[in-house]
Amino acid sequence: MTTDLLVEGRHFTKDADPRKLGHKALAVNLSDLAAMGATPRWALLSIALPSADERWLEAFSAGLFALAGRFGVELVGGDTTRAEARVINIVALGEVPAGVALYRSAARAHDDIWVSGELGGAALALRRPDREAQFPELARRLHEPEPRIELGERLRGIGHAAIDISDGLVGDLGHIAERSRLGMTVHYEAVPRARAFAALRDSALERDCVLSGGEDYELAFTAPPAQRAEIEALGAELVLPLTRIGTVASGPAKVEVLDAQGRPLAYRPAFDHFA
Amino acid sequence: MTTDLLVEGRHFTKDADPRKLGHKALAVNLSDLAAMGATPRWALLSIALPSADERWLEAFSAGLFALAGRFGVELVGGDTTRAEARVINIVALGEVPAGVALYRSAARAHDDIWVSGELGGAALALRRPDREAQFPELARRLHEPEPRIELGERLRGIGHAAIDISDGLVGDLGHIAERSRLGMTVHYEAVPRARAFAALRDSALERDCVLSGGEDYELAFTAPPAQRAEIEALGAELVLPLTRIGTVASGPAKVEVLDAQGRPLAYRPAFDHFA
Repeated sequence: MTTDLLVEGRHFTKDADPRKLGHKALAVNLSDLAAMGATPRWALLSIALPSADERWLEAFSAGLFALAGRFGVELVGGDTTRAEARVINIVALGEVPAGVALYRSAARAHDDIWVSGELGGAALALRRPDREAQFPELARRLHEPEPRIELGERLRGIGHAAIDISDGLVGDLGHIAERSRLGMTVHYEAVPRARAFAALRDSALERDCVLSGGEDYELAFTAPPAQRAEIEALGAELVLPLTRIGTVASGPAKVEVLDAQGRPLAYRPAFDHFA
Repeated sequence: MTTDLLVEGRHFTKDADPRKLGHKALAVNLSDLAAMGATPRWALLSIALPSADERWLEAFSAGLFALAGRFGVELVGGDTTRAEARVINIVALGEVPAGVALYRSAARAHDDIWVSGELGGAALALRRPDREAQFPELARRLHEPEPRIELGERLRGIGHAAIDISDGLVGDLGHIAERSRLGMTVHYEAVPRARAFAALRDSALERDCVLSGGEDYELAFTAPPAQRAEIEALGAELVLPLTRIGTVASGPAKVEVLDAQGRPLAYRPAFDHFA
């Protein structure tokens, strides 16, 4: 089970497209299930709205149910109330066979660190809305993320630890490092990134978006080196790039990022909701 | 599973006692499980706060965990974020053996209608805060309701339909009537009510609180007449008054309230969140 609380003014704007919001509110929860290797089954929706705005609700529901339908998720309950600012809380429940769930605490020393897709695009869409016309795929990444359900299911028995990248690569890998009590080394140049960065040529912005920008909802996971061929074949089958970006080390729980010359690279710490 | 979304300014005030709020936020969810005959097992807590106020959080947690501990409920997940007004969403999950859950749709014609405890006290505390010193038990009903878990569990195989009285007796019985497609007749004089009303001698206020005042979190349920002795014995064993207040009729789905002379009594319709 997993839950995500979205508050207007913080996670979305008052005039956010309700259809996309319905998609994203469910997608971020399904992404958490994917990171455990779970098959999504049921959802509960609690929603507070300033008024019973039918047009808004219809569009929101259309976005939510389109995604739910694609993954066979049944909405089995919820609550409705009124509030000045909109509030959306979704709970998603999934199933995974005993013994093959992916846990943050399950990384082992010498595992490879992998990541799906390309990173930094959602953060770039937030930071440079002026480039939306040039790179329409970035806005789509930000507002209509695709939960990596099938990847999560297929990693059962192959991967060790996994997490979805909602708060930024380094911050989220930090959760695996902490819970697994192991160090992690990431090679910055190996991290796959949105194509738009090549055209922008702003290396500071690029580094910040790729390492610390959240909302990509790709999966980061660890797996033993013996699984490399299997994982590469899986990426080809799913038509989803799966890229090896580093290694799990024994030793203190921290994430180290190295540049092309093997020197430690500074990065912005993980997002703090109350900072 | 059940969920309840509480928003500051609507369900509780900014200066509400955080310990009582922690109790109530979980209690209203456990009450929904009780109404299904379920044994509570797990909970998820999503919370949005304007700041990481440790003293507030400690008191809130103390109230929540004291109740969770009494019923063996484990907090297994959640989400935290920031918002200007506090928002609390709790999901509770319970277990009930197959075939004996209590459903709103399960009432049958000629069932008795029963109610636990005494009604109207929580609504009276809201409407007449000036009487708090005289009737301290009313404030306790409003702010620290006791979910009727054991009653719900013991009604498995005895009761047919059940619901918890959160929006008012008549409105909540209306949900059973609607889902069971049956009529319900309630004898107003038979409805047990908070003792305070006898001293207040305000029959209009009394009727409104008893029939339409919410937040009592008692259970209303239906059961066949053959179970009367069993239910009376159960009430004695649990030291909880269980009172027969009416009958399920065949015919259109509505709730009729009769006075002592058998004449229909007008009542305020159910609470509408968006009215």
